[in-house]
Amino acid sequence: MDSVLRQLPPQADANVLVGFDTSDDAGVYRLSPECALVQTVDFFTPIVDDPYTYGAIAAANSLSDVYAMGGRPITALSIVAFPGNGDAAVLASILQGGLSKMVEAGCTVVGGHSVSDPEVKFGYSVTGVVHPDKVWANAGARAGDLLVLTKPIGTGIIATAGKRGAASEVHLAGAVESMLRLNRAAAERLAGCGVHGCTDITGFGLLGHGREMALGSQVTLEIDAAAVPLLDGVRDYARAGAIPGGLRNNRDFASCDVAVAGQIDEDLLAILYDPQTSGGLLAALSDPPPEYPVIGRVTPRQQKAIRIL
Amino acid sequence: MDSVLRQLPPQADANVLVGFDTSDDAGVYRLSPECALVQTVDFFTPIVDDPYTYGAIAAANSLSDVYAMGGRPITALSIVAFPGNGDAAVLASILQGGLSKMVEAGCTVVGGHSVSDPEVKFGYSVTGVVHPDKVWANAGARAGDLLVLTKPIGTGIIATAGKRGAASEVHLAGAVESMLRLNRAAAERLAGCGVHGCTDITGFGLLGHGREMALGSQVTLEIDAAAVPLLDGVRDYARAGAIPGGLRNNRDFASCDVAVAGQIDEDLLAILYDPQTSGGLLAALSDPPPEYPVIGRVTPRQQKAIRIL
Repeated sequence: MDSVLRQLPPQADANVLVGFDTSDDAGVYRLSPECALVQTVDFFTPIVDDPYTYGAIAAANSLSDVYAMGGRPITALSIVAFPGNGDAAVLASILQGGLSKMVEAGCTVVGGHSVSDPEVKFGYSVTGVVHPDKVWANAGARAGDLLVLTKPIGTGIIATAGKRGAASEVHLAGAVESMLRLNRAAAERLAGCGVHGCTDITGFGLLGHGREMALGSQVTLEIDAAAVPLLDGVRDYARAGAIPGGLRNNRDFASCDVAVAGQIDEDLLAILYDPQTSGGLLAALSDPPPEYPVIGRVTPRQQKAIRIL
Repeated sequence: MDSVLRQLPPQADANVLVGFDTSDDAGVYRLSPECALVQTVDFFTPIVDDPYTYGAIAAANSLSDVYAMGGRPITALSIVAFPGNGDAAVLASILQGGLSKMVEAGCTVVGGHSVSDPEVKFGYSVTGVVHPDKVWANAGARAGDLLVLTKPIGTGIIATAGKRGAASEVHLAGAVESMLRLNRAAAERLAGCGVHGCTDITGFGLLGHGREMALGSQVTLEIDAAAVPLLDGVRDYARAGAIPGGLRNNRDFASCDVAVAGQIDEDLLAILYDPQTSGGLLAALSDPPPEYPVIGRVTPRQQKAIRIL
């Protein structure tokens, strides 16, 4: 579907600072010399059993695109697909979970749309504001920058293990806690750290989103695989074969742009392609804060967009 | 689902000029003393066979909520549900149809989200701008105002007749032409006419949306049934029983707030409840322009919210 979307003729509009042709997390539209809107929409089918938690994760995930562009979310519209004969208490829990995260983010739900649908889906269209000169785009990474990642990865693998009944309660809870955590604090912490490029890690995984940053910025990202933070348990589940279909797709799509420099454990390499829900921020910046691990650096463009060390 | 949405605790935010608790067409959020955002989201399953036309109608319908609030649409995010194994050419046509209307509206598509779904759905989240003092809310109608309606009604009945193979090509084409027409020109024409309250006519039909305006404004709308513009053919199809399920739902829900003063043809009364897609603007205003029919007037609140003459 992405290929169809990209075939559309772009609309000429000088106020579009970031459009959907650059693989960015959100669109950015200049309203005035001091104010631009950061806008994104995301929704998905349930990824956990508990409806309140599902709603909250969907909200955190939708908000994340705004944080990844350096924006402050201000309004949201809810998007609900739910069976006409479904349990109203379940729907209420989904909405309340979502609202809890919107309140935490200081983002006001001003409307929404719901449709009757046998398959539950939930998410938000979120609008934030950002100064037009302070947008964190995908394409801003510069040679010499360091790379920080603000959340551990592995939610896709742990969810897959969970569906097989193979994941421990502790590990599942760790993944849920990570998905529930807003990227707000991370974005606020990074704001003073000389960020040149930023993206959040979601469906394409660390290497997929890293590849887009590298291609957009015409640089290479060197990633120290051993420095990438992993959720507890994810290595064991990957070794046991709990590999989501999305991981294979991400690897098939992006691996031609990835060079592997040294000896690296195959399971660890797979994890770097794991699709994340409500993942952390990957930032290219000059002054890394001590709170987040440095997982690599930006170099002038080499043969491949990504080099794994 | 609406009842579940309304149970949610509202978020206290003084910048919300219009929230989702007032049955308005869109949310309005003040960004500055001179600028407010008008935001709406809408998407639905195909209502016509031709994919390009379906996309264009979905776009016109999504934009309409912004026009109904007195806003000027600036950005849109597309919302796509399409089968993973569906025909990419069909999807491309839907998107191109939508884009054609966005271009006509001067509204820039800055992003979107697509999901794989056996049931096709399409629409947009649209953001417009409006001066905070010039918002056309549902609740602003004043006794003494006249009521104008900027499009004929009957798209639901004609679509139902079409599904039965009972509608003529000419009548179907008339309904499609009406659904495709943006409310932009109407909104621009009405802007100088002393508009106090406005809504667009969509799923709840003329009487459903009129009822919401009346209740929100604490007034009664007197509607001259004979003055309401109808699409060609709709009376015949109504008489022949082409009554959409949504019409019955609208009548069941709203008729307790509707008084019928005189003798009125039952088919015509039914048409007043017909759910519209991309319907016209119903405006309560002081200076009706000659281009649009006056269909009634606003009076101090009587026993019922609506009185049909």
